Amino acid sequence: MIDWTTRLARRASTTPDLIGGILALAGARDLINFSGGFPDPSLFATDVVGDIARKLIENDAAVALQYSSSEGIASTREALADRLAATDGRRPADAELMVTSGGIDAITLIAKSMLDPGDVVVVEEPSYLGAVSGFMAFDPTLRGVPLDGDGLDVDALATLLRELPTPPKLVYTIPDFQNPSGRTMSVERRTALVELCRQHGILIVEDVAYSQLGFDDAPRPSLWSLGPDVVVQIGTFSKVFFPGVRLGWAVGPAAVVAQLSIAKQNSDQCAGALGQRMLEEYLRAGHLDEHLPLARALYRSRASALTGALERHFDGLATWTVPQGGFFSWLHVPGVDTMALAVVARESRVAFVPGSGFFAESRDNEHLRLSYSRISESDIEEGVVRLAAAVRSLRETS
Amino acid sequence: MIDWTTRLARRASTTPDLIGGILALAGARDLINFSGGFPDPSLFATDVVGDIARKLIENDAAVALQYSSSEGIASTREALADRLAATDGRRPADAELMVTSGGIDAITLIAKSMLDPGDVVVVEEPSYLGAVSGFMAFDPTLRGVPLDGDGLDVDALATLLRELPTPPKLVYTIPDFQNPSGRTMSVERRTALVELCRQHGILIVEDVAYSQLGFDDAPRPSLWSLGPDVVVQIGTFSKVFFPGVRLGWAVGPAAVVAQLSIAKQNSDQCAGALGQRMLEEYLRAGHLDEHLPLARALYRSRASALTGALERHFDGLATWTVPQGGFFSWLHVPGVDTMALAVVARESRVAFVPGSGFFAESRDNEHLRLSYSRISESDIEEGVVRLAAAVRSLRETS
Repeated sequence: MIDWTTRLARRASTTPDLIGGILALAGARDLINFSGGFPDPSLFATDVVGDIARKLIENDAAVALQYSSSEGIASTREALADRLAATDGRRPADAELMVTSGGIDAITLIAKSMLDPGDVVVVEEPSYLGAVSGFMAFDPTLRGVPLDGDGLDVDALATLLRELPTPPKLVYTIPDFQNPSGRTMSVERRTALVELCRQHGILIVEDVAYSQLGFDDAPRPSLWSLGPDVVVQIGTFSKVFFPGVRLGWAVGPAAVVAQLSIAKQNSDQCAGALGQRMLEEYLRAGHLDEHLPLARALYRSRASALTGALERHFDGLATWTVPQGGFFSWLHVPGVDTMALAVVARESRVAFVPGSGFFAESRDNEHLRLSYSRISESDIEEGVVRLAAAVRSLRETS
Repeated sequence: MIDWTTRLARRASTTPDLIGGILALAGARDLINFSGGFPDPSLFATDVVGDIARKLIENDAAVALQYSSSEGIASTREALADRLAATDGRRPADAELMVTSGGIDAITLIAKSMLDPGDVVVVEEPSYLGAVSGFMAFDPTLRGVPLDGDGLDVDALATLLRELPTPPKLVYTIPDFQNPSGRTMSVERRTALVELCRQHGILIVEDVAYSQLGFDDAPRPSLWSLGPDVVVQIGTFSKVFFPGVRLGWAVGPAAVVAQLSIAKQNSDQCAGALGQRMLEEYLRAGHLDEHLPLARALYRSRASALTGALERHFDGLATWTVPQGGFFSWLHVPGVDTMALAVVARESRVAFVPGSGFFAESRDNEHLRLSYSRISESDIEEGVVRLAAAVRSLRETS
């Protein structure tokens, strides 16, 4: 028998399998699952999308069931451009916008298009582990820049730029309700970041996965709206439509988007046309605008249940961020290895994502991410009780 | 303004955009389009899949609209395993099979998992340009091995193996109704190829995109069925179900498939769950078995129309392969640069794919690929007439 593990690419040995562990729990029903950025299925618009799908298959099969162009179906991209005009205050030109198969697909297309081995990619510290893993497949050097309550520390980035012999190829940021920290970048920081990267010719990758899910009405201009010449914005419809069709977008400088479209020819060639057309019909009928207030209210109420439970049961055990939108709170549990905690917690049927995979450089192991997006309020309470017991149990045994 | 083209990865400048050109014509209706491996939309089972989609959305939204695990939904993989047992005579173990987002996705997952820069990948000469392009994104050295009427020349491969200082990582082959040549590998060659690669510890990548679309009932054991220890078989449902959900599979040694699943976490994370469940229901209800004879009959009749038209109008201008299945005939047009011919042909509203992109090493420019899969018989006749006129016109002016 040939041992194929000896024949794998070098990158295979350094690819963490944290996402696999998260997705493997996607369907698990026997535990309280704080892992994963899963939208709540009660929000899936099953009352309208079933009909949309059936009608498209009956009346538009030659488009909806066929291959699409790599940049996406023209009419779908029109609907996306209209949406961006409404949310971001700027309507992209045709050549600035493409459809992707979700957010990670967009990250991988950018990495494949932009990165030679050793190129520097700057990420927030901590950052979304899926993005970190997507970049790492193309062998860059990752550098972390800290976050604070106003988001990415632009002064720290400026200091890093002075230290580096050549500018980074990319700066990756999640300005709104960041994954995993839940933090949001201030307007001043946004302007400063765009200005700094423009000066240095660095492409900003702005991930807006959770931007539409803010709990208040505070204005948050997208980086792309502030600097369409220097920002590629990537988004996903997995959080506000549903993940079962893989759909997102990339909007940015035309020269970059053109290369992303070419790169997409050897990923999945094109996003599934049926999903593209379903999303288009859903957007055109105004369903997303009706849907978002319901989603925001549900997630706001669950975020509040989580922080309430943390106050009751984690006082003195940990500190945490208080989310203003999105799906996550980020906990610091001093003196606890959260990888070990995950094992103990699973015995009492609670899951979360340990924090170490979210760090590019600092390999901190005392953090963890809790997602409250798909858990009932009573289960949130019970899960936090169990998690606090697991922390105490681990501290006693160690 | 920053010139982003100066900031792209080196691989971006070497990525051919032939597939983009093909997909861009996916919806074109103003020309006779021999380009692209497009299934005929009249074969899309719109009478049953519309209902399947609506019911899944109504009754199974928590699975069908949610993320799935990276290797695919367990019940969908069960249905695929049953299908492979029927078509290939071997039922894969759970860990040997995963769902992919079509065939190219599988190729890119294999490349990402197996290839370090400079590793050798052997491809048939000519081979599928999408695969060539998918491999090239990970910077291997491509080596071509010729095809003849019995498929890949295994003796020539053995000679190449003796010349190479280290064995190739991969040998990529399309044994049935090859893309672009239309040729099929003999049973003897299949056995010899598996044996040779097993001796040398080389992973065979068997692409069975068109295997179910043979015009006769001749036995064609899959390479994977002959060597499940040394073959990863990749397949697509784009040709026999429909391309509008991106769905395929990879089946092979468990250690390889495990790494492909990890690699998939940073492509699109998982194939779309709605498409997975639609396919599963379609397979379980036996619709594919009812459907395949209709598809084979339609494509056989179009292949016959094409070769008839070529005999009438291309005698003395070109030679061509006579397909026994699949979507393609491969033409040799001596003395004609088929890239230039494509430009002339487009003026008379005919499209095809020039051959040069299908070659790894030899850069032959006198071949072209004609796909007859999505063209009516009368348009096939008219298209061949126009193409012959274009050849004559090009020869006269040069």
